[in-house]
Amino acid sequence: MAQPGTLQVAVVGTGKMGADHVRRIQEVVSGATVTAVVDVDAERAKAVADRVDGCTAYTDPTAAMAAADVDAVLIASPGPAHEAALLAAFEHDLPVLCEKPLTPDAASALRVMEAEQRLGRRRVQVGFMRRYDAEYMRLKALLETGQLGRPLMLHNRHRNVASPPGWHSEMLINDSVVHEMDVTRWLLGQEITAVTVLRPTPSANAPDGVQDPQFVVFETDGGAVVDVEIFVNCGFGYQVQAEVVCERGTARIGDGHAMVTNMAGRWGGTIAQDFVERFADAYDREVQAWVDATRRGEVTGPSVWDGYAVAAVCEAGVRALTEGGRVEVELAERPALYR
Amino acid sequence: MAQPGTLQVAVVGTGKMGADHVRRIQEVVSGATVTAVVDVDAERAKAVADRVDGCTAYTDPTAAMAAADVDAVLIASPGPAHEAALLAAFEHDLPVLCEKPLTPDAASALRVMEAEQRLGRRRVQVGFMRRYDAEYMRLKALLETGQLGRPLMLHNRHRNVASPPGWHSEMLINDSVVHEMDVTRWLLGQEITAVTVLRPTPSANAPDGVQDPQFVVFETDGGAVVDVEIFVNCGFGYQVQAEVVCERGTARIGDGHAMVTNMAGRWGGTIAQDFVERFADAYDREVQAWVDATRRGEVTGPSVWDGYAVAAVCEAGVRALTEGGRVEVELAERPALYR
Amino acid sequence: MAQPGTLQVAVVGTGKMGADHVRRIQEVVSGATVTAVVDVDAERAKAVADRVDGCTAYTDPTAAMAAADVDAVLIASPGPAHEAALLAAFEHDLPVLCEKPLTPDAASALRVMEAEQRLGRRRVQVGFMRRYDAEYMRLKALLETGQLGRPLMLHNRHRNVASPPGWHSEMLINDSVVHEMDVTRWLLGQEITAVTVLRPTPSANAPDGVQDPQFVVFETDGGAVVDVEIFVNCGFGYQVQAEVVCERGTARIGDGHAMVTNMAGRWGGTIAQDFVERFADAYDREVQAWVDATRRGEVTGPSVWDGYAVAAVCEAGVRALTEGGRVEVELAERPALYR
Amino acid sequence: MAQPGTLQVAVVGTGKMGADHVRRIQEVVSGATVTAVVDVDAERAKAVADRVDGCTAYTDPTAAMAAADVDAVLIASPGPAHEAALLAAFEHDLPVLCEKPLTPDAASALRVMEAEQRLGRRRVQVGFMRRYDAEYMRLKALLETGQLGRPLMLHNRHRNVASPPGWHSEMLINDSVVHEMDVTRWLLGQEITAVTVLRPTPSANAPDGVQDPQFVVFETDGGAVVDVEIFVNCGFGYQVQAEVVCERGTARIGDGHAMVTNMAGRWGGTIAQDFVERFADAYDREVQAWVDATRRGEVTGPSVWDGYAVAAVCEAGVRALTEGGRVEVELAERPALYR
Repeated sequence: MAQPGTLQVAVVGTGKMGADHVRRIQEVVSGATVTAVVDVDAERAKAVADRVDGCTAYTDPTAAMAAADVDAVLIASPGPAHEAALLAAFEHDLPVLCEKPLTPDAASALRVMEAEQRLGRRRVQVGFMRRYDAEYMRLKALLETGQLGRPLMLHNRHRNVASPPGWHSEMLINDSVVHEMDVTRWLLGQEITAVTVLRPTPSANAPDGVQDPQFVVFETDGGAVVDVEIFVNCGFGYQVQAEVVCERGTARIGDGHAMVTNMAGRWGGTIAQDFVERFADAYDREVQAWVDATRRGEVTGPSVWDGYAVAAVCEAGVRALTEGGRVEVELAERPALYR
Repeated sequence: MAQPGTLQVAVVGTGKMGADHVRRIQEVVSGATVTAVVDVDAERAKAVADRVDGCTAYTDPTAAMAAADVDAVLIASPGPAHEAALLAAFEHDLPVLCEKPLTPDAASALRVMEAEQRLGRRRVQVGFMRRYDAEYMRLKALLETGQLGRPLMLHNRHRNVASPPGWHSEMLINDSVVHEMDVTRWLLGQEITAVTVLRPTPSANAPDGVQDPQFVVFETDGGAVVDVEIFVNCGFGYQVQAEVVCERGTARIGDGHAMVTNMAGRWGGTIAQDFVERFADAYDREVQAWVDATRRGEVTGPSVWDGYAVAAVCEAGVRALTEGGRVEVELAERPALYR
Repeated sequence: MAQPGTLQVAVVGTGKMGADHVRRIQEVVSGATVTAVVDVDAERAKAVADRVDGCTAYTDPTAAMAAADVDAVLIASPGPAHEAALLAAFEHDLPVLCEKPLTPDAASALRVMEAEQRLGRRRVQVGFMRRYDAEYMRLKALLETGQLGRPLMLHNRHRNVASPPGWHSEMLINDSVVHEMDVTRWLLGQEITAVTVLRPTPSANAPDGVQDPQFVVFETDGGAVVDVEIFVNCGFGYQVQAEVVCERGTARIGDGHAMVTNMAGRWGGTIAQDFVERFADAYDREVQAWVDATRRGEVTGPSVWDGYAVAAVCEAGVRALTEGGRVEVELAERPALYR
Repeated sequence: MAQPGTLQVAVVGTGKMGADHVRRIQEVVSGATVTAVVDVDAERAKAVADRVDGCTAYTDPTAAMAAADVDAVLIASPGPAHEAALLAAFEHDLPVLCEKPLTPDAASALRVMEAEQRLGRRRVQVGFMRRYDAEYMRLKALLETGQLGRPLMLHNRHRNVASPPGWHSEMLINDSVVHEMDVTRWLLGQEITAVTVLRPTPSANAPDGVQDPQFVVFETDGGAVVDVEIFVNCGFGYQVQAEVVCERGTARIGDGHAMVTNMAGRWGGTIAQDFVERFADAYDREVQAWVDATRRGEVTGPSVWDGYAVAAVCEAGVRALTEGGRVEVELAERPALYR
């Protein structure tokens, strides 16, 4: 229990997600403190920094990373800013927790991967936080026991009450199904090789011109078939479910059956209304895992390779959505660092 | 309650299914009795007839249908014998309950459909017995209330413990998924327009050369997307589940949660081991519904059109399985009799 | 399958329950027909008889039982009329299905029991229909396998939406908990030796002066402790649940989880609203079992002893309710006929 | 987020529970650190202290409480040592988290309560950690909305795989049902006024002479009836369930249905095997809540009054177990400090 001293973290980006990570590190997570926050909006950075003892506000990530009281970086800025921030962190040799997406496309992710390889060791944990959800962890653990046999199929449901203003059809792939891409790769230990997107008649509750729901099918290099229902205007709740079908049995998570009521002719329970309610614990566990590993001098969790591979699958998914048919995924060879 | 006299039924085919229908009519169903059984195997017919008071054994269906004590026909012979038996029943103007498949292919189904049209009224109820399962009936009733909005997707699971000897890959489409084809058409009130079959790596428990499981996708003329997991060597039980995803909610049947135990570190319950356990009530209800309608002088339930349409989807499904890719379904125009 | 001819049944009492049994025998059950109905209200008897081919209306049960076309009697008249009707049936040596309660009190039940003993063989099946419910049957079957070990406790919930007009506190014992008395004796194979009734503050939804809910505790001669929540104005549905706690595990029925919906922020399903919805199948199975046994020349199911023992427990229960404290049950010795 | 500095905690007692709290404060909880550990076993204290940077080992609680680097005390020593430790903490004016039981009997709890009253303000949070379990919290929150109406009954199940060596019948009341006593008081906001203990025939798996299971009934000053099944050698798992029955509906927690598998003829999931698995989060949340409140200068959570009232109910429960019948609970008047 005698870990090295408190980890001093710079949080880059103080929007909704970044500010929540600051709160998490200060109030929930053990062994870390926020000593720097960075935002191009100086006022917003200052407002967040003022609420934390001994925390300095910056507008330039590089300046924060150069500070003596910064040991590690959490990147929560918009996706297009990630590449520069990651490369800066590499220069200062700082461990990074980088929110997803690693970068907005496969090409830029590849550049980050090459830069990390030049360092010769992993520095980055990518923020695919579902790997830290207690239910997914239990599912993964069960698969690893082998008692169900080899996985053959994976059925996923991903439902949101309503899409935020401005959402368009491709965001269902890039911002929602992206989670199932990582989950598929992580749970099955296989890469996705092809994507097909089917387009049901859109719901009357979908904004004009938005293809919602979509039904997405992945094929993997291990011969598994994976389907994802993505429905971001389902109206009734936030629901993430997964069922793995193996040779000798199946396992399902996400029913969310914590409290059961009998009332007014119905039995049942409430459905979470957003990802905070459903996945708050996963975010807490993700950041705690990163802090703990970093204090031990290790890098664990989703890697830059995972961020790159998912970006490549997203690109195939968007093509399958817009052009129709089955689109194959093209992946670079997996470098030794990530094996 | 003053229905006309007891319905006198000829059962054609005394194999496992036919013999079970004889038992059902004698011991379970109200208002009918078996007065004739028919089988090309004279001994088997006699053995069954001997167990029923006042029941005559025949080897020729036409002879049975001509008997004075026969009011109606239940066809449970092998599929290739159905067309001739149906046409004979039409000649004797007898109402028919015909086990699925109506006939083995779309062309022969079309001939039966044309013959029935010449009669100018429906005579045949086709044995798609899932329409008589209490859970499917409840699901259909819920959809018809409209409270969930329009259906957009339908997810199906269809699992058997093990396939019988001699099963091959096409039988997963023709003998198993055939049920989901009818269920899809009936629940959604839409025709299937295209079929795609994905092929996961076969389970180690599938017989050599059998593509099991398969993941089948239907598109419908109402713009719905339907998926079916068919897995006939899943090992753990017989399980039929369906979830309809509508604009404002979803509904799921088939969990089968009748009795819950806590035992040896696990909570849960037993899974049915075969379709008799899961669907016995549906068979009882199907035959009772046919007897009741017939005694009222009506024909209800799945029609020859339903039998034909499903045969056409099966043909497309087998092509999708063997040739790969998406195969469109070609249907004749729907005759007035079946609208 | 060559059973003797159709059983000809006289139904005594054509109120709601009697009329429903007439419908059941005519339309649902196989192998029986109603040839006589009896009611002190001649018009009501005639109205029911007119709906059934070949059925005669009577006002005197004895006259009906003397008719040549009556093989068996189903008694569904009010409880106080049961004793006379049972004794009349004994005189005509007719098999009887007698709705619960056998008779209104233990003393009269004892007289019926003595009369049946003088016949030297069982003639009566008492209408404790929960023994024919598929879920209770499954629970009983599991207990009999012995895999859970010896039963130690039994928890019961019995909830009605609202009590009918005129219900008073003792009816919760005599008309509702009476079912759990029989269930306890049948599931555990033990007699009830003492009853305690606890009185929570009545619900605001209970009629003035009615003690609802009640919490009833049984002790048995096998050392088990049984509790029953009876709540007849619960407002939300009709719900009957039971959990047996054994040495190595527990088993629970009555969750009623047939169809699960996601809708408007909630997952779950509907709760039955009355006993017809919950137990219709049990009534069908009960009457079919009685018809089948009678046609085989047998008497099975709950016996006059069961009817008597439950009456004795009811008397103890009412005393426990009105006087407070723990009341012991006094039972006559069990005659050889019922061992 | 600018909370005062890190809370410096002395942990009194370094047995299993105390050592786990040290780990919790160091590795899980935010905002606190262990600076002192106390144990009469000097070696054990030193072993624990050595694993924490800057932590001193003591054998005398008073010495630890006098140390300059101690802001707060967590008492996890055996129950008989609590009174002295609490009074010492009062002298040093230190806030305390005291593991349950507050003290071993009502008389000593009363003395602690009087001492705290002399201080004129609350200093103690008692370790009834179920109040910090997410499911119980959800149940409490639902009750507080009032949508179910007033609570009338509360059904509890409390099952352990096997009792530790040396357990005797009274420990089922004092160490197990003690939790349901606090839960009842907290959920319903009512005091327990009488206790009855029923004694089923003990399970063959209970140690010789131990009355296991027991069925305990509470009555409350709000007119509610509460039952508790306590079964500490159930064999199959650790299971804590509660169902509140209110005027308009019921709510149940503890089903524990996180992951559902289909396997080998059964659907279902695993049952927790001990309280650590079931309640680890509750312990984490309890200690975090104490740290957060203490840093804000507040005392929240279960009070000394709660500890005293539960001790009084335990004494009544043990009498009900050993003497039989219904035993009334005698409580002192509730002091103003705890209203």
